[in-house]
Amino acid sequence: MNTAVDHKETNGGVTYNLEEVQKQVVELKGRIDALSKNAPEDKLAMIVFSGDLDKALAAFIIATGAVAMGMDVVMFFTFWGTPILRDKQKKAGGKDMMGTMFGAMLPTGSGDVKLSKMNMGGLGTAMMKSLMSKKNVASLDQMVEMAGELGVRIVICEMSMDLMGFKREEMIDYPHLSYGGVATFLEEAGRSRIQLFL
Amino acid sequence: MNTAVDHKETNGGVTYNLEEVQKQVVELKGRIDALSKNAPEDKLAMIVFSGDLDKALAAFIIATGAVAMGMDVVMFFTFWGTPILRDKQKKAGGKDMMGTMFGAMLPTGSGDVKLSKMNMGGLGTAMMKSLMSKKNVASLDQMVEMAGELGVRIVICEMSMDLMGFKREEMIDYPHLSYGGVATFLEEAGRSRIQLFL
Amino acid sequence: MNTAVDHKETNGGVTYNLEEVQKQVVELKGRIDALSKNAPEDKLAMIVFSGDLDKALAAFIIATGAVAMGMDVVMFFTFWGTPILRDKQKKAGGKDMMGTMFGAMLPTGSGDVKLSKMNMGGLGTAMMKSLMSKKNVASLDQMVEMAGELGVRIVICEMSMDLMGFKREEMIDYPHLSYGGVATFLEEAGRSRIQLFL
Repeated sequence: MNTAVDHKETNGGVTYNLEEVQKQVVELKGRIDALSKNAPEDKLAMIVFSGDLDKALAAFIIATGAVAMGMDVVMFFTFWGTPILRDKQKKAGGKDMMGTMFGAMLPTGSGDVKLSKMNMGGLGTAMMKSLMSKKNVASLDQMVEMAGELGVRIVICEMSMDLMGFKREEMIDYPHLSYGGVATFLEEAGRSRIQLFL
Repeated sequence: MNTAVDHKETNGGVTYNLEEVQKQVVELKGRIDALSKNAPEDKLAMIVFSGDLDKALAAFIIATGAVAMGMDVVMFFTFWGTPILRDKQKKAGGKDMMGTMFGAMLPTGSGDVKLSKMNMGGLGTAMMKSLMSKKNVASLDQMVEMAGELGVRIVICEMSMDLMGFKREEMIDYPHLSYGGVATFLEEAGRSRIQLFL
Repeated sequence: MNTAVDHKETNGGVTYNLEEVQKQVVELKGRIDALSKNAPEDKLAMIVFSGDLDKALAAFIIATGAVAMGMDVVMFFTFWGTPILRDKQKKAGGKDMMGTMFGAMLPTGSGDVKLSKMNMGGLGTAMMKSLMSKKNVASLDQMVEMAGELGVRIVICEMSMDLMGFKREEMIDYPHLSYGGVATFLEEAGRSRIQLFL
């Protein structure tokens, strides 16, 4: 059945060798495995650094849009973005002077953030909110809730929490909330098809 | 001609099977097709959220640079970026009060945008423009024109148009202009090698 | 030994052909080579456009984090980001009036940059620096030094240098410093797993 006779093929002076071809196939498979492992996933990773209403809206419009298109979405809130996720109904005690000052000066949640431009002492922000409501654009509050329902994951930067003196008990109840550092973001972003810094 | 005899090969106790090898090749081809389909294209997708002269300049320098290097480039103008694309020669009627107010308060086109810093009541912006001219850096107006000639595609965010009360008849004549939503951006960005949020 | 007899195999009515299989394998190898060549490298490319202390801190936290995770990292400093890399100990002569003005108005190095919000005439920035020190977060100066030790590459935008009238002799001594244009960034970003604009 198996003899030297079927070990090689010759056609037009070229010699083919099944053993050699099988080896090449195994090698290619290894390379394809490596490419697949490194290929970006259908995921979007976003840093929300800004604490402005307009950028926060853009962040949640992109996030909910992406998750509605079937993508995995992770938002990493850091620096000025962190206070957007405070819950105005919650209080955290035991803060030092700096923490108390930051707590008082920074916005308390998504209802409290301002436009980066044309805020005009709050008038511009109020105008924009009224306009959004009239045009049936969801408010930031509603978008955060929608993001939670759609499965958008949120990671809050631990270093920002620590610097601003925020405590976990004063942050919003969000179904997919966790805390992490820059390594958390980089691991997610490294496997993401889209990365954005807002 | 074709007999059981040439169906297998044995070398050093290992049996090779041409039918099996052919099956593996077909499987690998399927995986390569999938990888190719998901591989990022030679494309750059950019969100221009900012309405500042400096970021708009950066956006067009990157866009024209990328297209000159052979990349497909799409710029998605949203929020404060939208008024950069208004045409100062055009007027749109039939606006409600909010639309008229936004129209009056926001810049009318690329010649009307200001630096994010050191604007100093317009003096800093004028200085920068004069400096750019002296150093032979193209003005924002010229860059928009160049982008059009080079084939940079521009998509204007429909929600921003609606919120700010802008009408299509007041936007610039640009050869590769279209209107879209966040899904338009995400589809382009998901197949892009580079994505940026400005 | 090599005859027409072993050129084909038939199993269940299907004919297999070793020469044909070998051709397919060569074709797949070519496609895998192309995919590998275009696959993003384990690299992060970042534009530092902002000259704010908070964004500069974020930039270096991300950069040093990524390089610590084994990634190749390149930071491209442009526009307002450029003066962060001036050395306050160095002076450059022979500037024209515009260059002298920009030189005087823009920050002189990483110790001189301000928060984008809550600067409050320098008080907020000083508070943040004191807080960072208390919480054992490295200062921007220390982060730049750390980035240099870890091998983060920095490219300074030549057009920004030219526009602001900066000279190379007034920039910091940094072990992995070079000068380039938008094409430099695009080449790096096009092969990067993560791209960010700060």
